[in-house]
Amino acid sequence: MEKTCMDALPLTMNSSEKQEIVCIFGTGDFGRSLGLKMLQCGYSIVFGSRNPQKNNLLPNGAEVLSYSEAAKKSDIIIIAIHREHYDFLTELTEVLNGKILVDISNNLKINQYPESNAEYLAQLVPGAHVVKAFNTISAWALQSGALDASRQVFVCGNDSNAKQRVMDIVRNLGLTPMDQGSLTAAKEIEKYPLQLFPMWRFPFYLSAVLCIFLFFYCVIRDVIYPYVYEKKDNTFRMAISIPNRVFPITALTLLALVYLPGVIAAILQLYRGTKYRRFPDWLDHWMLCRKQLGLLALGFAFLHVLYTLVIPIRYYVRWRSGNLTVTQAILKKENPFSTSSAWLSDSYVALGILGFFLFVLLGITSLPSVSNAVNWREFRFVQSKLGYLTLILCTAHTLVYGGKRFLSPSNLRWYLPAAYVLGLIIPCTMLVIKFVLIMPCVDNTLTRIRQGWERNSKH
Amino acid sequence: MEKTCMDALPLTMNSSEKQEIVCIFGTGDFGRSLGLKMLQCGYSIVFGSRNPQKNNLLPNGAEVLSYSEAAKKSDIIIIAIHREHYDFLTELTEVLNGKILVDISNNLKINQYPESNAEYLAQLVPGAHVVKAFNTISAWALQSGALDASRQVFVCGNDSNAKQRVMDIVRNLGLTPMDQGSLTAAKEIEKYPLQLFPMWRFPFYLSAVLCIFLFFYCVIRDVIYPYVYEKKDNTFRMAISIPNRVFPITALTLLALVYLPGVIAAILQLYRGTKYRRFPDWLDHWMLCRKQLGLLALGFAFLHVLYTLVIPIRYYVRWRSGNLTVTQAILKKENPFSTSSAWLSDSYVALGILGFFLFVLLGITSLPSVSNAVNWREFRFVQSKLGYLTLILCTAHTLVYGGKRFLSPSNLRWYLPAAYVLGLIIPCTMLVIKFVLIMPCVDNTLTRIRQGWERNSKH
Amino acid sequence: MEKTCMDALPLTMNSSEKQEIVCIFGTGDFGRSLGLKMLQCGYSIVFGSRNPQKNNLLPNGAEVLSYSEAAKKSDIIIIAIHREHYDFLTELTEVLNGKILVDISNNLKINQYPESNAEYLAQLVPGAHVVKAFNTISAWALQSGALDASRQVFVCGNDSNAKQRVMDIVRNLGLTPMDQGSLTAAKEIEKYPLQLFPMWRFPFYLSAVLCIFLFFYCVIRDVIYPYVYEKKDNTFRMAISIPNRVFPITALTLLALVYLPGVIAAILQLYRGTKYRRFPDWLDHWMLCRKQLGLLALGFAFLHVLYTLVIPIRYYVRWRSGNLTVTQAILKKENPFSTSSAWLSDSYVALGILGFFLFVLLGITSLPSVSNAVNWREFRFVQSKLGYLTLILCTAHTLVYGGKRFLSPSNLRWYLPAAYVLGLIIPCTMLVIKFVLIMPCVDNTLTRIRQGWERNSKH
Repeated sequence: MEKTCMDALPLTMNSSEKQEIVCIFGTGDFGRSLGLKMLQCGYSIVFGSRNPQKNNLLPNGAEVLSYSEAAKKSDIIIIAIHREHYDFLTELTEVLNGKILVDISNNLKINQYPESNAEYLAQLVPGAHVVKAFNTISAWALQSGALDASRQVFVCGNDSNAKQRVMDIVRNLGLTPMDQGSLTAAKEIEKYPLQLFPMWRFPFYLSAVLCIFLFFYCVIRDVIYPYVYEKKDNTFRMAISIPNRVFPITALTLLALVYLPGVIAAILQLYRGTKYRRFPDWLDHWMLCRKQLGLLALGFAFLHVLYTLVIPIRYYVRWRSGNLTVTQAILKKENPFSTSSAWLSDSYVALGILGFFLFVLLGITSLPSVSNAVNWREFRFVQSKLGYLTLILCTAHTLVYGGKRFLSPSNLRWYLPAAYVLGLIIPCTMLVIKFVLIMPCVDNTLTRIRQGWERNSKH
Repeated sequence: MEKTCMDALPLTMNSSEKQEIVCIFGTGDFGRSLGLKMLQCGYSIVFGSRNPQKNNLLPNGAEVLSYSEAAKKSDIIIIAIHREHYDFLTELTEVLNGKILVDISNNLKINQYPESNAEYLAQLVPGAHVVKAFNTISAWALQSGALDASRQVFVCGNDSNAKQRVMDIVRNLGLTPMDQGSLTAAKEIEKYPLQLFPMWRFPFYLSAVLCIFLFFYCVIRDVIYPYVYEKKDNTFRMAISIPNRVFPITALTLLALVYLPGVIAAILQLYRGTKYRRFPDWLDHWMLCRKQLGLLALGFAFLHVLYTLVIPIRYYVRWRSGNLTVTQAILKKENPFSTSSAWLSDSYVALGILGFFLFVLLGITSLPSVSNAVNWREFRFVQSKLGYLTLILCTAHTLVYGGKRFLSPSNLRWYLPAAYVLGLIIPCTMLVIKFVLIMPCVDNTLTRIRQGWERNSKH
Repeated sequence: MEKTCMDALPLTMNSSEKQEIVCIFGTGDFGRSLGLKMLQCGYSIVFGSRNPQKNNLLPNGAEVLSYSEAAKKSDIIIIAIHREHYDFLTELTEVLNGKILVDISNNLKINQYPESNAEYLAQLVPGAHVVKAFNTISAWALQSGALDASRQVFVCGNDSNAKQRVMDIVRNLGLTPMDQGSLTAAKEIEKYPLQLFPMWRFPFYLSAVLCIFLFFYCVIRDVIYPYVYEKKDNTFRMAISIPNRVFPITALTLLALVYLPGVIAAILQLYRGTKYRRFPDWLDHWMLCRKQLGLLALGFAFLHVLYTLVIPIRYYVRWRSGNLTVTQAILKKENPFSTSSAWLSDSYVALGILGFFLFVLLGITSLPSVSNAVNWREFRFVQSKLGYLTLILCTAHTLVYGGKRFLSPSNLRWYLPAAYVLGLIIPCTMLVIKFVLIMPCVDNTLTRIRQGWERNSKH
C-alpha cells in the first residue's frame, strides 16, 4: 500500500503505516526548515548529523542519528550540506547504494565549478540516484509559509522513478514540481537563484544610455550655450531643470519602444505573407522584455511628475516670478490675459495628467496578482488599447507643450532643436505606422495571416 | 496499479508503468503549450496531426502520429482544434468510441453558435464521453508558469468517471479543478473568457452619467453664466478648472455609494425584523460591485489630486496672482493677514490630504495579494472602519472648502448652487443615517437580528 | 479501493464507488458554503439539520436529514454549529462513536472560554476523534474562489489517521493543510483569525509616540515661542506646517530603525565572535517587524510629500510671497539672484524626490505578489542595497535642507534645535556604524563568522 499522506483511508481506517520516513543529512538553516515543514505535512524525519548529540535547534519529533544510521532508515536522503563537504559521502557509498539522493545545494557564483553540484554528487556516489530539487526555495519561505510564486520547484534527474518519488514529496508540501529533464539540466537550475533581474538588463542599459545622452544634450543647450553667449551661470539647472527634460523624454521613448516590436512584427508578417516563419532573435528578445521597458517608462514618468510638481517650490522659480512681478509693478506695465496661452497651458497639463493616470493603471495591471485576476481578453484590452491611448495622450502632451515654438528656427541653438523634439521622433513615427496598420485593407490582410492564411502556401 | 504521477512508489520501487499517456489532437499554439506542460509534469504525450511529418515546433519527447493512430494510444484525447474543424472527427467515430474527449475550445464572440462547443462535439461523436476543461487557461500562462489566479479550471461533463480522470490531470498540472456539473454548464464556461470586466459595467456607466451631468452643470455655472452677464470668455476653464470640480464630486458620490447599500440593508433588516428574507435583486447586485465602485472613486480622487497640485503651474493662475500683486503694489493697498482664512485654507487642504491617504490605503488593501494576506477580521477593520473614516474626512474636506460661502444665497447663479453642494447631498445623508444606526438602542436590535433573532419568529 | 477524487482510474474505468460521502451538521452560512465547495470538488454531501424540511438555501445535490440519520451515512462529520449549541451532541454519543468530528468554529473574542472549542467538543463526545480545521477560511472566500493566501488550513488533532483523512479533504479542495500537532494546538489556531495586525502593534505605537513627542516639540518652538517673544498668533501652523515637520522626521527615524537591528546584530556577532548564540528576544522581535516599520515609514513619507506639494496652494504661503513682492516693489529693492541658494534649494528637493522614488520602489517590492515573483538574491538586492541607498538619500535631503543654518546657534529657541536636527541623530549614527562595518577588515571577519567560524571554537 502506498505510503504518502495523499491517500485517503478506506472506510475501515485500519492502515497503520501512514507516514513515509525521509532522511535529511545536515542540520543547518535549510535542513531544519525543510525538516519542520515536512513534519507538518505528515512525514517522519530522521536527521543525519556530524554531532548527533548537539541537537537543540531541531524541530520536535525528529530523530538525530549518525549519517550511516540515518541513511539506513529511509529510501530518500536529502543532502542539506554545502558542496564543499560532499567528499565525506564517499565513505558511505555502500549504505547509499540504490537510495535517492536529493541535491538541494546552491553556489555563490554562476559557473563557480566546471560541473553542476548534482553531477558532482552523482560522480561521488555512482550507485545512488541523484535528483536535483528545492534549490529555488529559501529557508525563510519554508518557515513563513509565503510560498505563492516560489511554488515552482525545478526537478531534474536521470532516473524517472526517483524523480517521481521526489515530485511526490514536492506536491505533498504544497509546491508544484516542474520536471526539467535529465541531470544535465542541473546546471541551468543551479543558475536560477543566482540571477539578478535578467530580463531587466537590456531595458536598464538602454535607459541609462538614453539618460546620459539626453543629459549631455541638454547641458550643451541649457548650460554651455547660455554661458558662451550670455555669460550666464546656469549650472544649478543640472539639479532639477535638466533632469525634468531628460526623464520625460526617456519615459516617452521607452513607452514607444514597448509597442514598436508589435508594429515591426506586423510589418514582417505582412511582408512575408505568413505567420509560420520565426521572428529574428533580436525581435523575440525585445518582445520578451516589453513589460520591463514599460515599467521603467512608468518610473521615469513618475519622476517627471514629481519634478514638475515641485516647480513652484524652487527658489529659482520663486525668484523669477517675483522679479517679473516687481518689474511689471515698477514699470506699471500692462499684462493682458492671453486666452490662447491659457488654453495651451491648461491643455498640455491636462493631457499630461490623463496620460500619467492611464500609465499608472497600466502599471497596476502589471502587478502579478492583478494580472492573474483578469482573463486574457481583459488583459489584452488594458495593455493594448489603453496602452496605445496612453502613448497617444503622452505624445499629444509633448506636442502641445511645444506649442507655437515647436519647429520655429529661433529655438535652435547651434542647430540643435529642443530636447523634447528628439523625444517625439520615435512615438510619432510609430503612431503613424500603427494608424496605417489599422486601416481596414491592411488590417484584414493581417488578420487573415494571423488566422493561418499564407500568401505563398501550397496547401 | 494506478498510473498517475501522484502515487509514491512502494519501498521496493519496482513499478515500471509510471507514466500515463495522453493524446492531443492539434499542434497549434495551445496544443503545443499544453503538451509541453504535461511532459514536464510527467505524462507521455502523443500528438495527432494532419501532417505528422511537419513537427519542428513540437516539444522534445512527444510523438507525432496521424489522428487515428494517435487516438488508439490513449484513453484521453484533448481536442486542441478550432470548432470549425470538428467535422472531420465524424470519420473517427469507431476509434473514438468510449474514449474521453476533452473540449478546450473558445469562440470569438459570446453566443456565436446556438449550442456550446462541447455539446456540438458530443453530438458529432456520440459514443465518446465529452468533458469541457482548460478553456480559461491561456497558452502564455501555461508556458510562463504564471498560473496563480488562473489556477481554477472549470470542468463539466455528463460522465462522472470521465470528469474525475480529467480533474486528476488538472491537479497534476498544479491547477485546481472546479466541477460545474453536467455538459449543459459548458455554455456558461465558454462565456467566461470572453467577458470584459462584467462587474465594472454598472459602476463605469454610473460614473460616466455623473461626470457628464456635472460637466454640463459646471459649464452652465462657470462658462455660460459669466459670458451672459459679464461677457467674459471662460472657455479655457473646461480644460482643468471644470474637470477639477467634476472629478472630486464624482469621487465623493461614488465613495458614499459604496457604503450606502450596507446602510439600506441594515434599515431593511430593522424594518422586516429578520435576516432570513432575501434582499431585492438590485440591492444584491449593488453589493457585489462595491469594490469596483470604490476603486473607481479612488481613480477620480487621484485625478482630483493631480489637477489640484498643478494649479500653481497653470498660466491662468500665475497671471491672476501676478495681476493681483501688481495691482496691490501700484495702489499701495494693505492686505492684512487673515488668521481665519489661514485656518480654513490649511484645514480643508489637510483634511483632503488625510482623506486621500486613507483612500489610497483602502485601494492597496483591495489588491488581490494584499487582501489575501490579511484575515477577515483585519480586512473588515480596514474596509469598514477605515472606509467610514475616509468618507468622513472627505465630506469634512468638502464642507470646510465651502467655508463661509457654503449656503450663502449670493453664491447661487440662476438659483443653481455651487457644484460641490450637490456632491454633499448623498454623503451627508448617509453619514447621518449611519450615525443613527450606531446609537446603542438601534445597534443592539440590529446585532440581535443578525445573530438570528426574528421579531415575528414562531420558534 | 480508495475513494478520494485524487485517484486516477485504471485503464478499464470500471470503478463505481467514486465519491466519498461527508456529513455536515448545520446549515448556516459556512456550512452551506463548505458543502457547495465540496460538491464542486466531487464529494457527496449530507446535511444534518434541526429542520430537515426547511432547506431552500441548500446547494443542489445535497441531502438533508436529521442529525442522527445524517451521522450514520458518513465517517467524517463537519460540525458547522456555534460552540454555544454543542451540548445537543451529547445525545448523539453512540451514533458519533468512532467517527471523525471536524471542529471549524471560531469565537468572538480571544480567550472567551477557558478551553478551546475543539477540546470542549472532545470532552462532550469522548468516543469520537476530534480534528480542528477550516476555521481560518471565511465563507466568502469559499464562495468567491479567492483562496490564494488563505490557502493554508491549520489542522490539529490527537489521532493521526483522523488528521490524515481531514488533510486529504483539505487538499482535494485545493487548499494546503498545515499539521500543527495535537489538539492542544487548537487554542493557538482559534486565536489566529481574531488577531488584528499583531505585527503592526509595536511599530504603530512607536510611530504614535514619535509623532506626539515631535508635535509638542514643534508647537513649543513654532507656536509658543513666537507668541511669547513676538506676540504672533501662529496657531494655524498646526494644520499643515507642523505636521509637515513631524511626518518627515518620523519617516526618517522609522526608516533608520528598519536597518538598525541588522547593524546591532552584526556588532553582537563581532563582539561574541560566533553566530551560534541566540540574539536577545527584543532584537528578534525587532527584526520580525522590520517590514511593518518600513511600510509605516513609507506612509509618513507619502504624507510628507503631499503636505509639501500643497505649499503653494496655501493661503498663508500666497499671502506671504505676495506681501514680500509688494514690499519689494514699493521699496524698489533689488533682489539679486543667489546661485548658491538656487543650488541648495534644487539639490535638497532633488535628493528628496529621488529618495522618495526609491522608497516607493521598496514599498512595491514588499507587496506579497511582487516579493514572491523575485528570487531571494533579487529580493535582498532591493531591500538591502536599494534600502540603504534610500536611507542615504533621505538623510542627505535633510542635511542639505538644513543648509547653512544647520548648526548655527541663532537657530536655537530656548536651547532647542530645529526639529529636523533631532531626526538626523539616529540615521547619521547608523550610517557611520554601517560605514565602519563595511570596511574590508571588519567585513572579512563578519563574513567568516557568518559562514560558521567561531573565535572561541574548540573544534
